[in-house]
Amino acid sequence: MKSEFQFIRNIKDRFELSHVGDDCAVLAKNEVSDLLITADLLIEDVDFRLEWAKPADVGHKALSVSLSDIAAMGGIPTFAMLSLGVPKDLWQGDFLDGFYSGWHALAQTFGVELIGGDMSSADKLAIDSIVLGEVPKGKAIRRSGAKVGDLIYVSGSLGGAAAGLRMLESPGISTQWNEQSADLINNQLRPIPRVELAKQLRSLGILTSMIDISDGISSDMTHICGSSRVGATIEGEWLPMNPKLTELFSLQEAVELALNGGEDFELLFTVVPDAADLVGDLPVTRIGTIVDSKKVELKIAGESRELLPKGFRHF
Amino acid sequence: MKSEFQFIRNIKDRFELSHVGDDCAVLAKNEVSDLLITADLLIEDVDFRLEWAKPADVGHKALSVSLSDIAAMGGIPTFAMLSLGVPKDLWQGDFLDGFYSGWHALAQTFGVELIGGDMSSADKLAIDSIVLGEVPKGKAIRRSGAKVGDLIYVSGSLGGAAAGLRMLESPGISTQWNEQSADLINNQLRPIPRVELAKQLRSLGILTSMIDISDGISSDMTHICGSSRVGATIEGEWLPMNPKLTELFSLQEAVELALNGGEDFELLFTVVPDAADLVGDLPVTRIGTIVDSKKVELKIAGESRELLPKGFRHF
Repeated sequence: MKSEFQFIRNIKDRFELSHVGDDCAVLAKNEVSDLLITADLLIEDVDFRLEWAKPADVGHKALSVSLSDIAAMGGIPTFAMLSLGVPKDLWQGDFLDGFYSGWHALAQTFGVELIGGDMSSADKLAIDSIVLGEVPKGKAIRRSGAKVGDLIYVSGSLGGAAAGLRMLESPGISTQWNEQSADLINNQLRPIPRVELAKQLRSLGILTSMIDISDGISSDMTHICGSSRVGATIEGEWLPMNPKLTELFSLQEAVELALNGGEDFELLFTVVPDAADLVGDLPVTRIGTIVDSKKVELKIAGESRELLPKGFRHF
Repeated sequence: MKSEFQFIRNIKDRFELSHVGDDCAVLAKNEVSDLLITADLLIEDVDFRLEWAKPADVGHKALSVSLSDIAAMGGIPTFAMLSLGVPKDLWQGDFLDGFYSGWHALAQTFGVELIGGDMSSADKLAIDSIVLGEVPKGKAIRRSGAKVGDLIYVSGSLGGAAAGLRMLESPGISTQWNEQSADLINNQLRPIPRVELAKQLRSLGILTSMIDISDGISSDMTHICGSSRVGATIEGEWLPMNPKLTELFSLQEAVELALNGGEDFELLFTVVPDAADLVGDLPVTRIGTIVDSKKVELKIAGESRELLPKGFRHF
């Protein structure tokens, strides 16, 4: 079955859509700024489960994933909209009260104002989170600018959100290692978008491409390489795995989670070859190099294999 | 149970949301234009039924309802996004092919380009239609500007879309009067947003408030009066009922459909008292007057009664 990524590429070609293909669309705004806009659709029991998450967690995450898209372009979020399809039982209870509290607490942190949206009834909760942002004119960071020789970096650590999801799916595990699992579950339920770090990186003028890690490094690196028409070599030993992963999982499972797990909402980006010193003080880790090939290669334990996109697919 | 309108008012007050309360949010863009943005969420079996509508009809209507919101502000649509929650069986068939064809045909008519969105799997089809537009700086027409003495108008005719829905819900009726019902069903499935007319009206400089008729005159007039803190008198005999209504329904049913049916996506607007001559050549009909009261009053057959909002509510 074709993936949603293939489908979107087909639609982009069929209707000649020049603005599709990055974490946000970039539109001309005025003399000093471009406008960014992104939408993320979260469906109950597909993208989240109400048994696992408090109403405020769901509100937090719905906004967070869209803020992360703004960050991935090097932008600053400004305004947001929410379209909600709400089941009747959630409408009558206090779910929405908690949902908006969680949403609004994060929105305040980033100075984002709710300006609209829509509501409908639905069998399952459906949330379309739309966020607008700004970036200095012509300075949006796209997926398509990586060049051979560029250095590949990620922010923070990897695999925590996917490990948290594993915990939630297997309640036995999460009670067994209670303290570690609480942090990992928090990574899954309440990710913090890297808005400030992305702005710092963009201001350095060294970024050639950027994406947020929503689908997993294996998929998101493939997105950058496809858009930039380059290949990549990832050094398995350099991956900044979330330290709790190796305590709770086998090394092989931990690497798997770090590469394919997704939802870390960290930044994956490339910089010009001589920029290593400039990013040295920031919470980022070099994980590889852009190369002249058509694939993403993973070097690990002295061996080399192609890293195929194995992140989450809806279809 | 509280309606979605009450809920949105509560959220607006609780979080002090200054941009909420019109058909679109209005944001500063540059020296000459303001930016408009709107979102409309359509859920399968709540807002539409796949038994009734061809895939292209669903695509057409999803875009149409949002274009109508841009029209209601006096704006010109520019860009759009689509977030789709898609059931697996629709993903595998050719539904989406037809859906995007219908969507894109209407988009081309209005010069609108698709710039993004999102996709998820879902049990039922969920469509969030997001449209951006522009309006000359400071010239967006809001719901809040109606003044006592202003004249109330609607464009086109009323009740056709609601009658079409009635036909679709009772297949017996629609085969019985085949030709008339086809037009009414078309009003329901493929509304044409009044973008050009709204722009003409706005350019005349006489509009004091405007809304599109999505919920029915009784509700939408109440929205204008609530925002403008005025009342209205509607002359029942002046209502431009769709002529097919009186052929197919009793007069009482026809008036009911025209007042409360909704989804005509015509414009409901008010103009300054001396503007009657200026709108004379346009396809609009005067239906009443803004008055100094707190209610909407309907005069019909020599009697007068309060017109309560009876349009569609999700909750």
